Amino acid sequence: MAGKTLAIAGGVGGAKLALGLTRVLSSEHLVICVNTGDDDCFHGLHVSPDLDTMMYTLAGLSDPQFGWGLKDDTFTALTMLKQYGADTWFNLGDRDLGTHIRRTQLLGRGATLSQVTLELCKSLGVEHKVIPMSDDPVRTVIGTPNGDLSMQEYFVHQGAEPVVQSIRYDGAQAAKPSPGLELALNDADLIVFCPSNPFLSMGPILALPGVLDALKKSSARKVAVSPIVGGDAVKGPAGKIMSELGQEVSCVGVANQYRDFCDYFVIDGQDSHLGPRIEDLGIKPVVDSIIMQTESDKIALGQSVIALGNR
Amino acid sequence: MAGKTLAIAGGVGGAKLALGLTRVLSSEHLVICVNTGDDDCFHGLHVSPDLDTMMYTLAGLSDPQFGWGLKDDTFTALTMLKQYGADTWFNLGDRDLGTHIRRTQLLGRGATLSQVTLELCKSLGVEHKVIPMSDDPVRTVIGTPNGDLSMQEYFVHQGAEPVVQSIRYDGAQAAKPSPGLELALNDADLIVFCPSNPFLSMGPILALPGVLDALKKSSARKVAVSPIVGGDAVKGPAGKIMSELGQEVSCVGVANQYRDFCDYFVIDGQDSHLGPRIEDLGIKPVVDSIIMQTESDKIALGQSVIALGNR
Repeated sequence: MAGKTLAIAGGVGGAKLALGLTRVLSSEHLVICVNTGDDDCFHGLHVSPDLDTMMYTLAGLSDPQFGWGLKDDTFTALTMLKQYGADTWFNLGDRDLGTHIRRTQLLGRGATLSQVTLELCKSLGVEHKVIPMSDDPVRTVIGTPNGDLSMQEYFVHQGAEPVVQSIRYDGAQAAKPSPGLELALNDADLIVFCPSNPFLSMGPILALPGVLDALKKSSARKVAVSPIVGGDAVKGPAGKIMSELGQEVSCVGVANQYRDFCDYFVIDGQDSHLGPRIEDLGIKPVVDSIIMQTESDKIALGQSVIALGNR
Repeated sequence: MAGKTLAIAGGVGGAKLALGLTRVLSSEHLVICVNTGDDDCFHGLHVSPDLDTMMYTLAGLSDPQFGWGLKDDTFTALTMLKQYGADTWFNLGDRDLGTHIRRTQLLGRGATLSQVTLELCKSLGVEHKVIPMSDDPVRTVIGTPNGDLSMQEYFVHQGAEPVVQSIRYDGAQAAKPSPGLELALNDADLIVFCPSNPFLSMGPILALPGVLDALKKSSARKVAVSPIVGGDAVKGPAGKIMSELGQEVSCVGVANQYRDFCDYFVIDGQDSHLGPRIEDLGIKPVVDSIIMQTESDKIALGQSVIALGNR
């Protein structure tokens, strides 16, 4: 395929498909745009959880058990921070801290998050282009009976337990899509929506000014992969959140979020009976094996998605 | 002794005597003022080498081999920072980074270095009061044939090898002594000049506006311990630097720096023949065992110094 592919992703699931795509597409033909609505500040350091998950995954450094963090990391500095009375509910390994310290330093010198991400990725040997959705701060805020929570506060500290009453993306209206995202939205022949949480991972990106319009106007083929299989998310709290927000917890519920721009929606074999309902939304359902456990699974799904772009 | 003691110190040698003093004096009767002319910024983090050496030493956490840093520390984050292309010649362990991260965060929130130091010390169980010489930035700059170098650049990165042509304390004129130092200079009955480098450790403190005047006017007994034994420093580059600055490399050379205010100057047995020359400076020489290897050595010297205060 000679065209360009833009993959839009959130956390662990998105990184899995992105890894598959990097095994099929060369670095000139793929741009991976990552959610930064989860970004947060811990101990004065700028942490970008989804960007790091993507970077570590593509560098072959991610923890195979969790999908986030660095494998074989230690937690020595965090233990010291705890002794100093710091809040240490957000697990930050020593190697991982190297990333956050470096990012914070480079941002402090005036570099954009795009520039910093490019440099960090290059240092770790990641050849494919990973870009943040925006260089401006956008923060996903989750309204719960316990009050407004940041994404990490909700997800990590409170274990995604509070009922989600609302979700908003603070700063999104004033933020601009990153230069790389703007370019890719114009250039791409294929736009892939990786299997990520439609509200927490994709929502912040779609909330950026001009992104939804660009998607609607783009002549690129738009292919989404469902993060929901059967009645729940493959990983993470997407199912619970969709239910609490009054959405149908199924691949149809996700497809409904993408109905304004999506051409193909890839669902799992066990959801094939829901195909007609996706078709009713004006989206072509495609049945495939979408649970990615091995690297082969990721590559195979990547190939399928690219094939849909060429169909 | 019912009075109050102010100990003024730099790095490793100063911390040794300070430890001895803490074993003899209760926390109400001792204030330890530490040089911050060595402070520097690494990876965007505020590092206070002498404050940390003091804090770790008093907490029983310092590396017994080097006297600085934390014992059994690991260097995982630094390895990652190196991979990101950061300059990593300044060794920062993972536990140590916990200190710098926390300090930087608290300073960023608007706390003074005095407040931060108090909080960090408290967290590590240090009961005696450790204070920075100033809450304002003072930076020791060393003029060499290689150009102006920061203290750490000179001492750590260039291994104290360049010839020292000049020393200045940037910011000292505009800085104020810390509130704790001002108070202790007024309150103390005994002021101890720990065995630290007279130019690199004591110089920045003496350069603060009002400190030299306060010392001259103070009715406190002033006792200094020589950092030089025989023809060289017990530890560090003090001998080399004094020689390069055209000073006599001996306890007399150090005593000469303190002649305007010092009452007693403690020298080692092997320098007893130099006693008369110190007496010529108007300072009473006291011969003692000043090389501190064991904790008993530190306590014994602390007791001797306090006894001089009571003499």
